[in-house]
Amino acid sequence: MQRAKHDSIRNTNTLIVLESIINSGPVTKREIQEKTCLSWGAVSNITNELLRKKIIVETKSSDSSVGRTPSQLDVNSSENLIIGLDINIEGITAVLIDLKCRVLKKISQEVLKTGAEDILKQVKLLVHLLLQDSHAEISGIIGLGVAMQGAVDTEKGISIFSPHFPNWENVPLKDILEKEFDIPVFVEHDPNCMALSERWMGAAKGVNNLLFIRLSMGIGMSIIINGELYKGADGSAGEFGHITMNPGGPRCSCGNYGCLEVYVSGSSIIQKAAEGLILGRFEILPGYTEAKKELGLKHIVAAARQGDGFAENLFQEAGIYLGIGISNLVNIMNPDLIVIGGEMAKCSDLFLDVTMETILQKAWKNSRVNVVTSKLENDSAAIGAAALFVQKLFNREKVLSI
Amino acid sequence: MQRAKHDSIRNTNTLIVLESIINSGPVTKREIQEKTCLSWGAVSNITNELLRKKIIVETKSSDSSVGRTPSQLDVNSSENLIIGLDINIEGITAVLIDLKCRVLKKISQEVLKTGAEDILKQVKLLVHLLLQDSHAEISGIIGLGVAMQGAVDTEKGISIFSPHFPNWENVPLKDILEKEFDIPVFVEHDPNCMALSERWMGAAKGVNNLLFIRLSMGIGMSIIINGELYKGADGSAGEFGHITMNPGGPRCSCGNYGCLEVYVSGSSIIQKAAEGLILGRFEILPGYTEAKKELGLKHIVAAARQGDGFAENLFQEAGIYLGIGISNLVNIMNPDLIVIGGEMAKCSDLFLDVTMETILQKAWKNSRVNVVTSKLENDSAAIGAAALFVQKLFNREKVLSI
Repeated sequence: MQRAKHDSIRNTNTLIVLESIINSGPVTKREIQEKTCLSWGAVSNITNELLRKKIIVETKSSDSSVGRTPSQLDVNSSENLIIGLDINIEGITAVLIDLKCRVLKKISQEVLKTGAEDILKQVKLLVHLLLQDSHAEISGIIGLGVAMQGAVDTEKGISIFSPHFPNWENVPLKDILEKEFDIPVFVEHDPNCMALSERWMGAAKGVNNLLFIRLSMGIGMSIIINGELYKGADGSAGEFGHITMNPGGPRCSCGNYGCLEVYVSGSSIIQKAAEGLILGRFEILPGYTEAKKELGLKHIVAAARQGDGFAENLFQEAGIYLGIGISNLVNIMNPDLIVIGGEMAKCSDLFLDVTMETILQKAWKNSRVNVVTSKLENDSAAIGAAALFVQKLFNREKVLSI
Repeated sequence: MQRAKHDSIRNTNTLIVLESIINSGPVTKREIQEKTCLSWGAVSNITNELLRKKIIVETKSSDSSVGRTPSQLDVNSSENLIIGLDINIEGITAVLIDLKCRVLKKISQEVLKTGAEDILKQVKLLVHLLLQDSHAEISGIIGLGVAMQGAVDTEKGISIFSPHFPNWENVPLKDILEKEFDIPVFVEHDPNCMALSERWMGAAKGVNNLLFIRLSMGIGMSIIINGELYKGADGSAGEFGHITMNPGGPRCSCGNYGCLEVYVSGSSIIQKAAEGLILGRFEILPGYTEAKKELGLKHIVAAARQGDGFAENLFQEAGIYLGIGISNLVNIMNPDLIVIGGEMAKCSDLFLDVTMETILQKAWKNSRVNVVTSKLENDSAAIGAAALFVQKLFNREKVLSI
């Protein structure tokens, strides 16, 4: 419950006004008043203050009716910008967004995995490049959000470990980047950033209770309840990849037996394909060169798409297990929507039908089954990390002095 | 986000003050001021108003120090009472509680299952008896909360069906009881009421993220997130009994195969025991008389407690499956605490060790494993239904005119 002290009320009202401009701008003061139920005086005072601080700007109304045209207000898109950064195996991506989460600039590059210090150098350089390319001043930036894979201590902003980077352990990302750029930095686990992206601009716009499944080499899940990230008591909610599908099943990398990840992840499909390859099960395996021994998901996907029966079956079997797993999620959490993202969402044509069929068979009959695949591009984690910053603003963390 | 209008601020502050008195009373105004961060003037105005409306009363301070003794404020326990009612297979229970959720009076009786009309008559009579026995006037009662088994439409206050009552379908409990007693009535699914009871006075005091598993003939679950009931998109979150443990397992009453309920519920244990009885597997079965053919859980529990190997194994096997199921809950939701209640909690000595062992083996290593059994008595659903009323007060539903 909130303390309704004077300062806090003023802040609350300011955020209500700002949120209404972010969501609906350009808007007139009259429209803000109608949307917020605040008094005309309060709306005037607050918008004047926001104008003075250059958080919002006055724009010309497009209304061509006769008489005095009321001026409209909108977010100041040339200031109050936010940087989003995604550091992952495939590369680093940096985006610059405004308070409306519109992407103003984006750059990506592959990452040279030569140790923590080198990677950090590349990260800093990329942010400097982003600022240079977009002609933005660091003084116009209010913060930086980082999407990080592996284990993350979000409170301290430390990347605890990242399985794919050499010598990467307990890297104090927040401290390092705050020192370099002198702006507040937040670090968040990457599927959480992707889930926030889905909510800002993807399949889950306006959805309050959302599960975002990141189906890649492993399986991660982000939970949004009442519009906010739910992380559980120890920050480890969402270990969907390690629910037990079959107590007597094969051993999982986590040490247990028969976890979902053993049946559904990209890694498990590659492993089963590798075994099949030795036994000569594939009829075709387009693009695969035996000499290089680099069997990847793309080869198996290509084989399945071209009608190889063994490859098709690998995805079908994974799809059934995914369906059972998702029906368990539906039964336990009854979410508004489930979004499947990650690398394997891109080949969902190979398994989604059988997954849906299984869910509909097994999910509790009174519960809706809303499952879609993500349509967002690879920059969704970076955008989500930046969007997290906007969300923190509305949670009244001190990221913008209003 | 809240509208910080004047009335709403006043209401919010009033509820902040009242909550502080409920939680910590008797308290002085100075203590309220310290706890709430409100101004002295605001605290004075609000407490005067609450005193005038007889929601709180002035009590003598127990502080024996010299000088003027500041008066203390506490909830008025002779007015603003709430009735809680639990209607279930085993009987009906009615309690009278005050705003601090202290039980002032309780009565129970068996229910004659002779049709909806008869049951409703008994329910009304029990409430009248409760009022009579406690010398309470209906004018001092602010509301009535009903804990109802089976399927419940909580919005409309309708008991959709109850599997154990004959001719009981779409019973408009809220309307019927509001007409009889002329006070606001809420109807809630009974495991939700039991979970709220655990949070008010049981194993989950002050716990914000809680799973309450009702392990009886079937398996139900109630989810509390951020201190509030989480019901999901269609009100069907918590169907823990119907997660798939084994896709090729036995058929469940829900139509699917290998649900948790097939392995762990009281019904499943009785069914397996009945099959074992035919095959002569029991060495002892205390209290069971073959002529009556009324094999119940109590007979199997007695056999297991007296060392019958077959009976012991039935509970051990159920315990392992329960452990796998709970480890899935830990992996997905990472709750602060899991409370096991319901009829089978009373014989948890027969399976809890193996359940805990299984959870510790299978739950994600970074997640806490806090599992306890409920210590509350049979009246916990009735108390929870009444406590729900107090919670609704703080959610600012109009149940008390402040």
